[in-house]
Amino acid sequence: MKKYFELDPWNIIQDKLDSEDNRIAESIFSIGNGYMGQRANFEEDYSGETLQGSYMAGIYYPDKTRVGWWKNGYPEYFAKVLNSTNWIGIGVKIDGEALDIAKCKVKDFKRVLNMKHGYLYRTFTADIESGKKVKVEAKRFVSIVNKEIGAVKYSVTPLNFSGTIEFSPFLDGDIKNTDSNYDEKFWSEVSKKAENGRAMLTVKTKKLDFYLCSLMKYDILKQGKEYEYKAKTLEREKFVGNIAQVSAGENEEVAIIKYVSNVTSRDFKPEELAEAGEKILQKAYAKGYDELLSEQAKAWEEKWKESDIIIEGDVSAQQAIRFNIFQLNQTYTGEDDRLNIGPKGFTGEKYGGSTYWDTEAYCVPFYLATADKKIARNLLIYRYKQLEKAKENARKLGFKKGALYPMVTMNGEECHNEWEITFEEIHRNGAIAYAIYNYVNYTGDKAYLGEYGLDVLVEISRFWAERVNYSEQKHKYVILGVTGPNEYENNVSNNWYTNRIAAWTLEYTIEALGYVKDNEASRYDEIIKKLNLEETEMVKWKDIIENMYYPVNEELKIFLQQDGYMDKEQILVKDLDPKELPINQHWSWDRILRSCFIKQADVLQGLYFLQHLYDKDTIRRNFEFYEPRTVHESSLSPCIHSILAAKLNKEDKAYELYLRTARLDLDNYNNDTEDGCHITSMAGTWMSVVEGFGGLKVKNDMLTLEPFIPGKWDSFSFKVMFRDTLIKVSVSKDTIKINNESEKDIKVLVRNTPYVINALKSIIIYTE
Amino acid sequence: MKKYFELDPWNIIQDKLDSEDNRIAESIFSIGNGYMGQRANFEEDYSGETLQGSYMAGIYYPDKTRVGWWKNGYPEYFAKVLNSTNWIGIGVKIDGEALDIAKCKVKDFKRVLNMKHGYLYRTFTADIESGKKVKVEAKRFVSIVNKEIGAVKYSVTPLNFSGTIEFSPFLDGDIKNTDSNYDEKFWSEVSKKAENGRAMLTVKTKKLDFYLCSLMKYDILKQGKEYEYKAKTLEREKFVGNIAQVSAGENEEVAIIKYVSNVTSRDFKPEELAEAGEKILQKAYAKGYDELLSEQAKAWEEKWKESDIIIEGDVSAQQAIRFNIFQLNQTYTGEDDRLNIGPKGFTGEKYGGSTYWDTEAYCVPFYLATADKKIARNLLIYRYKQLEKAKENARKLGFKKGALYPMVTMNGEECHNEWEITFEEIHRNGAIAYAIYNYVNYTGDKAYLGEYGLDVLVEISRFWAERVNYSEQKHKYVILGVTGPNEYENNVSNNWYTNRIAAWTLEYTIEALGYVKDNEASRYDEIIKKLNLEETEMVKWKDIIENMYYPVNEELKIFLQQDGYMDKEQILVKDLDPKELPINQHWSWDRILRSCFIKQADVLQGLYFLQHLYDKDTIRRNFEFYEPRTVHESSLSPCIHSILAAKLNKEDKAYELYLRTARLDLDNYNNDTEDGCHITSMAGTWMSVVEGFGGLKVKNDMLTLEPFIPGKWDSFSFKVMFRDTLIKVSVSKDTIKINNESEKDIKVLVRNTPYVINALKSIIIYTE
Repeated sequence: MKKYFELDPWNIIQDKLDSEDNRIAESIFSIGNGYMGQRANFEEDYSGETLQGSYMAGIYYPDKTRVGWWKNGYPEYFAKVLNSTNWIGIGVKIDGEALDIAKCKVKDFKRVLNMKHGYLYRTFTADIESGKKVKVEAKRFVSIVNKEIGAVKYSVTPLNFSGTIEFSPFLDGDIKNTDSNYDEKFWSEVSKKAENGRAMLTVKTKKLDFYLCSLMKYDILKQGKEYEYKAKTLEREKFVGNIAQVSAGENEEVAIIKYVSNVTSRDFKPEELAEAGEKILQKAYAKGYDELLSEQAKAWEEKWKESDIIIEGDVSAQQAIRFNIFQLNQTYTGEDDRLNIGPKGFTGEKYGGSTYWDTEAYCVPFYLATADKKIARNLLIYRYKQLEKAKENARKLGFKKGALYPMVTMNGEECHNEWEITFEEIHRNGAIAYAIYNYVNYTGDKAYLGEYGLDVLVEISRFWAERVNYSEQKHKYVILGVTGPNEYENNVSNNWYTNRIAAWTLEYTIEALGYVKDNEASRYDEIIKKLNLEETEMVKWKDIIENMYYPVNEELKIFLQQDGYMDKEQILVKDLDPKELPINQHWSWDRILRSCFIKQADVLQGLYFLQHLYDKDTIRRNFEFYEPRTVHESSLSPCIHSILAAKLNKEDKAYELYLRTARLDLDNYNNDTEDGCHITSMAGTWMSVVEGFGGLKVKNDMLTLEPFIPGKWDSFSFKVMFRDTLIKVSVSKDTIKINNESEKDIKVLVRNTPYVINALKSIIIYTE
Repeated sequence: MKKYFELDPWNIIQDKLDSEDNRIAESIFSIGNGYMGQRANFEEDYSGETLQGSYMAGIYYPDKTRVGWWKNGYPEYFAKVLNSTNWIGIGVKIDGEALDIAKCKVKDFKRVLNMKHGYLYRTFTADIESGKKVKVEAKRFVSIVNKEIGAVKYSVTPLNFSGTIEFSPFLDGDIKNTDSNYDEKFWSEVSKKAENGRAMLTVKTKKLDFYLCSLMKYDILKQGKEYEYKAKTLEREKFVGNIAQVSAGENEEVAIIKYVSNVTSRDFKPEELAEAGEKILQKAYAKGYDELLSEQAKAWEEKWKESDIIIEGDVSAQQAIRFNIFQLNQTYTGEDDRLNIGPKGFTGEKYGGSTYWDTEAYCVPFYLATADKKIARNLLIYRYKQLEKAKENARKLGFKKGALYPMVTMNGEECHNEWEITFEEIHRNGAIAYAIYNYVNYTGDKAYLGEYGLDVLVEISRFWAERVNYSEQKHKYVILGVTGPNEYENNVSNNWYTNRIAAWTLEYTIEALGYVKDNEASRYDEIIKKLNLEETEMVKWKDIIENMYYPVNEELKIFLQQDGYMDKEQILVKDLDPKELPINQHWSWDRILRSCFIKQADVLQGLYFLQHLYDKDTIRRNFEFYEPRTVHESSLSPCIHSILAAKLNKEDKAYELYLRTARLDLDNYNNDTEDGCHITSMAGTWMSVVEGFGGLKVKNDMLTLEPFIPGKWDSFSFKVMFRDTLIKVSVSKDTIKINNESEKDIKVLVRNTPYVINALKSIIIYTE
């Protein structure tokens, strides 16, 4: 496997310009703050391989659906996160010659993503065509303190000549999405202004009328001192900038500091954008670059206090887990309940930046344990707010009642248009119900049920009740024509996971209704009235719960992937020619569908979610049957398997699977990091450590731990928030140490023994 | 139901300009000769609703595939029959004012498709804006005697004024396909020339380099006498024409006769096209319009002698069956084994003019019985020639051996890109094998097996042998992940029809190998060697035949559509709200898939093909189960059901189903005739009469008949060719009359009684 980056516990380091794989590095070195994100494109011109990407959270475009053959029920559009105004750009000329490192000799190239303090640094020396040599340094960040602010410091030092360095900082809104279905550009110009030392550009999406106003201001420094310049202004369609020149002697550093504010009509009225952006920009400018950067470093240090995982004895694992946590924290901050987490976050266009069930299945647990509960709560409320759209979606497919949440969405409407996914991968509805259970179970916030939860649970339950049908042949309720999490089979009947999560949703909805009825009677009456929920519906739900059909293999005592699964030729992944892996790159779709190979956890996903309901032997039998048939060709697969393997004391297997998820992007394991990082699966990596190696779960309102340490590690530690208590769990070869970092006592169950840890105290449990 | 056209036994008549539904009439009134085809677009300008369509058989374009989500194995392009040079066009101006009947008052409009003699006639009077009135008549045809020739006679008579009539005959190659995936035009110009009285245009496809050279020459007549004109020439990109003016007194008819030859690089070298086309044009011009038309009438009368069906007592049925036969004969003549039959023939762009299994399943029987055997043979050889491509196609999907014929093709390569069809609707391979059986069985031409048949049969059998897998659970061979003829379910397992036709193919291949071995030993050895066919393969085939799994319902004693079909909610079509029909226009795809409704004959298709292997009770039980669940939303469905109903003595049902197929296009039953006529299903209509009401089949090399007459009809008669004998079968309420119109005696089995009919004699059997 190619080694792309240097190992370091706190930094991602690239020590050579790799022009062939530059797009991979651009993804990895992305920076973001939950409000905006930026791929690691170069500030100066670059004619080599690059995927330009500047993204503003929540700004999307309804790009007309592209389809070979239309099916009734398909959505009209696919929502795409928009590649928006390039605000980092700074053209550089050296005595009139443009700097473009694709076209000159580059030495001492280094790119560093400083995860501890949240910035991106780059340096190199370039021999340009004229023979002149310059040293360049660039540092930039998007602020997590002042979310609209980004800043770049870019310096050039002539090494073997004296001459003129020209900087042309700009804002370029003439941007396109590489994934545009019809090669259209999505932005049009609203207004612009370029003056000496500053510029403003407002653009607007051609549909939906999102406005983005970007403002820039900059200083030029020579040998660290402010330099008076008189710039020329640049203006063209959707583009503003300046051209400023500085004469520099040999070894004299000249630098530009560019401050940018990006404000949008999601937060301000369009006519107020320029003024609002100007105020924010002035405030940041007044603070100055160094102060902004120091705020940034402090704020990141605070984040790490809550969410860091420390691994000793394995720097590769240490770097990987921090990279995952860093990217997750860059992508979603939970402050805005209109936002969610796209599978690639702000690191690429792929998957349209939209919301998938990844959020509920993988991200909610991460935010539950590493942040205030309101963060996960906001992720839940996002779906609550989209309930009406989910009901419309069910109507569109012909259901009289209930809600079917979309597979892929930006505003609650379905965007995806493969029938086998759009119409059939309905298990997503189950994950959305499960996230409510998970949230309430973890936080103890049962009030959520009456406030928001029941509306969603009841409508999802209604969908299931209509989606099942009674088989006169089986004398059971069946669910026909679905795609499970294993997308390597489509239109199957009685996918065990789907049937199980459907019945479980009905059970939990009845339980939740019971809780609210018993504890908030008047709220209960309100809800029943509002939802027009009839007793007969609940009677039907109970009948479905009791008479749901679950495919099983009696002989092996396992739950069956789907009806007819055992008719497939049973081969194991280990018996495949490794050259044929991943099968999705080597096999026809036809062959994949007919094979027994499973893309990602499916039966096992159900056993993971519902592990409190199944004994270990059941989980073991299913794990031992399915894991060898699973190709893990979704980034969401290994983590679930790793956690279950840990639970089953298969420590080597747990570690092996953990490795597949931890450095997925850093090692470009799936050969697709150039499109962006697998943000949502990073939460799965975190889960592998905390739920897998840490064995963390909540049972009967108590935090429980069953830690073990992978053989290669000396120790590892993680922090979790649990019901307003922050604890740190440190596991070494022979001890488990738990620090209670808060002002409240907490009772924790460790390997089935309860321990009380007093406020600000710790305990050590000796394990050898 | 809207009545579009007048009833008449030999003509299709439209007696009013229906501007809203003009595209429907354009389809219905299409003319063609197997070499080229032309929708009934108007010669003069028309700004109303129109779908321009001029097609040259075998000239297609590999239009880049359009897809929402790519799957491994998809084809790079979709082949489209090309809309090509508009050669019928004649602009008309009246005292400088353009004639456009969308923009003036039209009276006495009449359009007639004369099926007996093969031409299209149109007349109307128009009040143009200036208040001038003209009478217009236009007659045109594409010659079935001189295939490259088309001719138009177009006359204008001023009714209330004297003035100048301007004709501008043209050839317009600046044409686009409405169904172009990326809005491209597919033709570029090669050369052109316009002179007084004539013009030439050569265009070339932008891919694959098909050349089309069109030449025109014309006369102008005044009161029937040749008129000397001096025309202006017109030239622009991909366009040539003339402008000629005639002064006409009140009630003086002026006319233009336009002769066109269209020649292509399929028949001539590109550099020889202009000369070849010129020769052909000159020859036709020398004959003159009246002679050409009279040749055309005679040739069509000959065709009718072989293929007419006469129905007395039901003019609607009479007109319909003739329309179907006429369109089939216009579409395919069997002279060119590189050609095949597109589902819409030359009447529209839809389905790309490509080849489907429709040809083998529906068209082969028609041509077998109504034309020389070489016609059907050429349809078979078409597939033989594409065998290498079918092998490549199987390799592409990962099969080590065998051939999978494409679902949709122009040159043997797959064009279609829906995985559930492209990869899964593999039963098409069975129909291609079946057509060989059908051809040999009907014609007795067993030499075909050794010559071409075995190659195809062996490679298809190899495909089946690899496509099945042995289910350790069922202890049977299964076929997983298929779509049957019923496209309203996808990716099912053990579709009875597919399993049965697969096993049948193996049986027939073994039988055919045996025949060739026993009768042409040296040829057999050659084939075995060439195909590298090993004994073990045949052993495996026999094992599959013996151990194939067939889903059944024991209780109902029926073959089961597919595994799990009985888990579906069982509803009958008659219980659906008629407003929800057709379900494909009213239901989401999801709902359709989950329902028990069947799009077209599936189990019953198998029982139709293999009726010699099943007793009537078996067919009856299956018919009575499936027919009520079949929505017949493919035009290919009712005919098969009608034939089986006839066989089962369900005469009313047979007639009811016949009505759905017979006037499908004339009554625009499926609401899509505007896209073109359902050419391939027209062969199914013919089958309904001959195989259904006539009860025709071949048993033990003998023609057998079991006729009955629908209650509404007084009599019907049809002709069939059987092994060089032409017989005419006439059925009335109380007699069956069989004329032997050839010089050989023939033995026929009628209602299980054998009769010998001597050459040129007839017999009458009294049935009441």
